[in-house]
Amino acid sequence: MSSAVSPLAPTEVPEMPEIPGVRLATAAAGIRYKGRTDVLLAVMDKGTSVAGVFTKSKCPSAPVEWCRAKLKGGGSSKGSLARALVVNSGNANAFTGKTGRAATTLTAALAAKAVGCSANEVYLASTGVIGEPLDATKFDGVLGRLAESAAPADWMSAAKAIMTTDTFPKVATATVKLGKAKVTINGMAKGAGMIAPDMATMLSFVFTDAPLSSSVLQSLLKSGVEDTFNALTIDSDTSTSDTLLAFATGTAAANGAPKITRASDVRLKAFTKAFRAILADLAEQVARDGEGARKLVEVIVEGATTKISARRIAMSVANSPLVKTAIAGEDANWGRVVMAVGKAGEPANRDKLSISFNGIRVAKSGARDPSYNETEVSEAMKSPTIQIKVSLGLGKGRDRVLTCDLTKEYVAINGDYRS
Amino acid sequence: MSSAVSPLAPTEVPEMPEIPGVRLATAAAGIRYKGRTDVLLAVMDKGTSVAGVFTKSKCPSAPVEWCRAKLKGGGSSKGSLARALVVNSGNANAFTGKTGRAATTLTAALAAKAVGCSANEVYLASTGVIGEPLDATKFDGVLGRLAESAAPADWMSAAKAIMTTDTFPKVATATVKLGKAKVTINGMAKGAGMIAPDMATMLSFVFTDAPLSSSVLQSLLKSGVEDTFNALTIDSDTSTSDTLLAFATGTAAANGAPKITRASDVRLKAFTKAFRAILADLAEQVARDGEGARKLVEVIVEGATTKISARRIAMSVANSPLVKTAIAGEDANWGRVVMAVGKAGEPANRDKLSISFNGIRVAKSGARDPSYNETEVSEAMKSPTIQIKVSLGLGKGRDRVLTCDLTKEYVAINGDYRS
Repeated sequence: MSSAVSPLAPTEVPEMPEIPGVRLATAAAGIRYKGRTDVLLAVMDKGTSVAGVFTKSKCPSAPVEWCRAKLKGGGSSKGSLARALVVNSGNANAFTGKTGRAATTLTAALAAKAVGCSANEVYLASTGVIGEPLDATKFDGVLGRLAESAAPADWMSAAKAIMTTDTFPKVATATVKLGKAKVTINGMAKGAGMIAPDMATMLSFVFTDAPLSSSVLQSLLKSGVEDTFNALTIDSDTSTSDTLLAFATGTAAANGAPKITRASDVRLKAFTKAFRAILADLAEQVARDGEGARKLVEVIVEGATTKISARRIAMSVANSPLVKTAIAGEDANWGRVVMAVGKAGEPANRDKLSISFNGIRVAKSGARDPSYNETEVSEAMKSPTIQIKVSLGLGKGRDRVLTCDLTKEYVAINGDYRS
Repeated sequence: MSSAVSPLAPTEVPEMPEIPGVRLATAAAGIRYKGRTDVLLAVMDKGTSVAGVFTKSKCPSAPVEWCRAKLKGGGSSKGSLARALVVNSGNANAFTGKTGRAATTLTAALAAKAVGCSANEVYLASTGVIGEPLDATKFDGVLGRLAESAAPADWMSAAKAIMTTDTFPKVATATVKLGKAKVTINGMAKGAGMIAPDMATMLSFVFTDAPLSSSVLQSLLKSGVEDTFNALTIDSDTSTSDTLLAFATGTAAANGAPKITRASDVRLKAFTKAFRAILADLAEQVARDGEGARKLVEVIVEGATTKISARRIAMSVANSPLVKTAIAGEDANWGRVVMAVGKAGEPANRDKLSISFNGIRVAKSGARDPSYNETEVSEAMKSPTIQIKVSLGLGKGRDRVLTCDLTKEYVAINGDYRS
């Protein structure tokens, strides 16, 4: 496994402020490796709203099923409430059958006891190996100590605790006005491999002190992921564990922040924008830490018949192994982009198609651009960020997808276990 | 580019018999590289029926559009007829705009003159770089000499002339009874990269002396590709140039072979079986020569709700980079198979799912098989041929897809142009 930090890692890491009502603690429970921090406990104040979006996999992990059930059944008059979040790395608790369900029940019971809440207020997420039984008895004792030591400050340690093949922790923060009060949003994510559309992402958690109902949070998540985490692909492989949870402690109400119970509330405008920016930031960090990635690739499709059509074509380009290996080789191989447009099955007219790499048009009206300068394009392809723009010339549909290149390191990370 | 022959190449190459009514010749026209054989001319006797299936790409190559137009418009009372096939490697004549269309017209005119037929009886296929204009004037003179020297015997040279990144020529042959007469079927194919479903394949040509109408040939192709070339994926990337053409000279009528004009003719039974076997053989050879391939992978899905559902799940497994890199690493990583089943979007019940590698069951009823022996499975994964069997336990839908592993060599072949 590659251990060097991705060359695409953000150069600046934000100072993460506290979120009143949220306390964090991490520990090494020995889930898979000895001495590696692998458990995160987040403790939330009473009255914290929760919402979530999950993988569309038909074979979801036990924690995904646990969270879905709690969100569905978790109805108080205020919607779903949460007091604790337990995240472990090292074991995904996926495809573990009855044992897996028992492990989620035990983990939630242990967390509920440690925090002093109902098991129905405990949310769970696991990431790591699929198919290995998760020994939840390892959380016994550990969760009690974590609940005692949980403190508001250590967001970076929390983001590190949920990493697997990630090479850097992923955090984002924003402070924004809600009514006349200042509220804060903190987010973290893990990614690296098995990242594909139709999901939330591997694991991501967003916390705020804004007083938002769970239905408002759910609405923010649903609309927020569409152009962020759902517009992201590392390797087209959708995980069984993708989980994005959002928690709103509501503690900012004490500072005069208004309670928001409808997503259409106009006072939510700035917050919605900041919330989406956090999701976009985290999603981009996941792309920047794609397994083996050396290039961040933005695929823009414009002039499609619809936005949905543009998304499908952009995903076809972003998931094409031949396009991704060409980018790895710093080769402006627009022929492969044409191929990927053609295989998407969406309306496309070869003779109207134009393609550019980092702003340099290489193909125009269905053929090589006559003004195309190979040296200039080759130079541009050396950049660590590559933008591929496809103009279809058919309509006003536009979309954007993030991905990374496909390198030998990806194959090494995922195929060298036994060599 | 890798130049070593794939370790999965067939150990025995069949003796290719002559097909009466078909003559072949190859030459180096200097399309892309000097001194490399890059043109094949096949000359067929008058009255040869022709049929074809092509890429579903929305951006097909100029030769694909040429062939489609000829097959559509080529109606005599006997259906579409062919006198010549011109295949070049080195340049795909795809995404070449008007220049590309002009190049097909010129090539067909030159071939028609050389062979002494109508341009409407000339079929074309090109493979190689996308987006570079094809200079068809290079065929001038060459095609005349080829038409003069064309001879019935040299099938291996023909199969070699159409290769690009292929590491071995792909041929197959069968002799079968039609009525009381013996008829022969010869096929050739090229593949290697940009190979995905929804297509014929990159390029494949099948010839027979059986007296079959073009509608019968078309029917044989259409039903024949479904479980052969369409059940094959190297890298999920569908080419702009996929072409499978079949030619029937009808010369076996002189030996008493009956003329077949309806696909439902019972006398066609043995021929149909042999024809499909040729397509299956060629498709498997393409999988065996996937770029960078070190393992031939057969994915079998059974117990699905329908055959279509089984195909989609098998394709999801066969196209998963994480499954393919695990195979490359000789890792029986059934967790990734679960992931690929889950992301297919087809009916699947985790708790009924079983998975085996080369006959050894590793997962059963939604969890690790208790009898699973790591050492035994690791040994089995060293085999150059890997069978992944997924049993869904839902219904009777069954299907099979061929693919290969994803190795660093694939990335090197497709990404190392500039390094």
